[in-house]
Amino acid sequence: MTPTIGVFDSGFGGLTVLRALVRRLPQARFAFLGDTARLPYGSKSRRTIARYAVQSAQFLVREQRAEFLVIACNTASALALEAIQEAVPVPVLGVIQPGAHSARAASRSGDVLVIATDATVHSHAYAAACHALNLRALEKACPLLVPLVEEGWIAHPVTEQVIRIYLDELTTDAAAQGFCPDTLVLGCTHYPLLRSLIERLSPAGIAVIDSAESTADAAVQLINGVRKPRRSMLDPFSGSKVGENTVQTEIRCFATDSVEKFERLGSRFLGRPVGKVEIIDLDG
Amino acid sequence: MTPTIGVFDSGFGGLTVLRALVRRLPQARFAFLGDTARLPYGSKSRRTIARYAVQSAQFLVREQRAEFLVIACNTASALALEAIQEAVPVPVLGVIQPGAHSARAASRSGDVLVIATDATVHSHAYAAACHALNLRALEKACPLLVPLVEEGWIAHPVTEQVIRIYLDELTTDAAAQGFCPDTLVLGCTHYPLLRSLIERLSPAGIAVIDSAESTADAAVQLINGVRKPRRSMLDPFSGSKVGENTVQTEIRCFATDSVEKFERLGSRFLGRPVGKVEIIDLDG
Repeated sequence: MTPTIGVFDSGFGGLTVLRALVRRLPQARFAFLGDTARLPYGSKSRRTIARYAVQSAQFLVREQRAEFLVIACNTASALALEAIQEAVPVPVLGVIQPGAHSARAASRSGDVLVIATDATVHSHAYAAACHALNLRALEKACPLLVPLVEEGWIAHPVTEQVIRIYLDELTTDAAAQGFCPDTLVLGCTHYPLLRSLIERLSPAGIAVIDSAESTADAAVQLINGVRKPRRSMLDPFSGSKVGENTVQTEIRCFATDSVEKFERLGSRFLGRPVGKVEIIDLDG
Repeated sequence: MTPTIGVFDSGFGGLTVLRALVRRLPQARFAFLGDTARLPYGSKSRRTIARYAVQSAQFLVREQRAEFLVIACNTASALALEAIQEAVPVPVLGVIQPGAHSARAASRSGDVLVIATDATVHSHAYAAACHALNLRALEKACPLLVPLVEEGWIAHPVTEQVIRIYLDELTTDAAAQGFCPDTLVLGCTHYPLLRSLIERLSPAGIAVIDSAESTADAAVQLINGVRKPRRSMLDPFSGSKVGENTVQTEIRCFATDSVEKFERLGSRFLGRPVGKVEIIDLDG
């Protein structure tokens, strides 16, 4: 049987994580839910975020019969992962641990930079995950990058200038604090769209970690571990080349309110048409 | 008796409207509510916005005893003004009509440009209000300006470049459509902080209308009209000079969730310390 993987985000940025998952698991079935009625989670309290995220996770497990959940939302991963894990009977993976593990694998100096939204930085979730792996992490909020991506200014001189300013500030801070960073984690699901620009503008010798890719790698490991008997069904190399998805992957997208922006911008994040987004009511 | 004026926004941008009101009515009492738990309204349906806005208005009237309400939120003004007017027994003023009326007064050509958020532009509320006054209006969404203001990049080369791009696109569109614009309406409560930059970068011969100021002017007229017997109490010129508020105006600020950003950024919008923001629960 084809496994169903539930992917959850407060908005549609998590479609970059779904994209990375589809590349690795083209034969899986995917249900993506964006809790667009209640975004942004970043400005809400932990209790509120946990309540919303649990409702969303339960929809994916109960209604969509997801056997695995990927929380493709940094804020929910930072503040509600345990609450979700307690609330649903399936394995749940967030985006923060995988990003930290990739940084651990990439870094020789042990000093890591993280760029993310204001809310993620304020949660210090990446710093905590890095510290647990004996890394030092310096986090920087880059609140203009999400609106720049959503404006479609992906390869745009203004975006280049903004990234330059943020990276300058971050590396200056790092030097002042005696850091020797060799790794930069993209700690926001919108940032993969800026990856090549960020790589080009990063100082020489800095490896850029795309936490969407790290999360998809970790998800494959988790799923293969849980579903050993059917491993071949899920082997990314069994049916089609990674990155060249010839299989017609089944993807259903749901949102909790207005789908206009989701449908308009989502395809750029998913790398294929998102198609019709179905509206559901989690309050109801 | 000192009148209490309720001011409502989905966030804290409406503090620019409150600022303009305080300058004109320094002896009034003000209660400001930012429905921060449920912002942004712009991505929500009309029904949801009306429900939230009515709850917020009822709080200001019932709990704070507001005798007048100013809806200092473009989305709520566009989509929920009538619902609020039906739900509360006090006069209610939005931000859109006053902006359109000021444009009518300023424009000779009858062709008006409007810059606003994506949600406000999609509602076409300014275009409708302008058309009702025999003006032609061309609206443009400028989604990067709010995050730039919130990043504090007020007099910043990036912000200047972004405004230049938006205004270029808008005036090019206007020319292509045979418009002869002589007036530009700032249709977002964040934009007054960029007013001088926008004025400097606007083409010669364009008058910039700050809808926060227009709304405050209209509020004074409305309040004086309703409270004729006590007019002198509310006369902006009775106690102190406009713009030089020597009276200790009483302002209470409320929010429905996290007040961190409100308290951190609000003072820049209000032009004075916002002080302690009280958290209330409208769902409860």
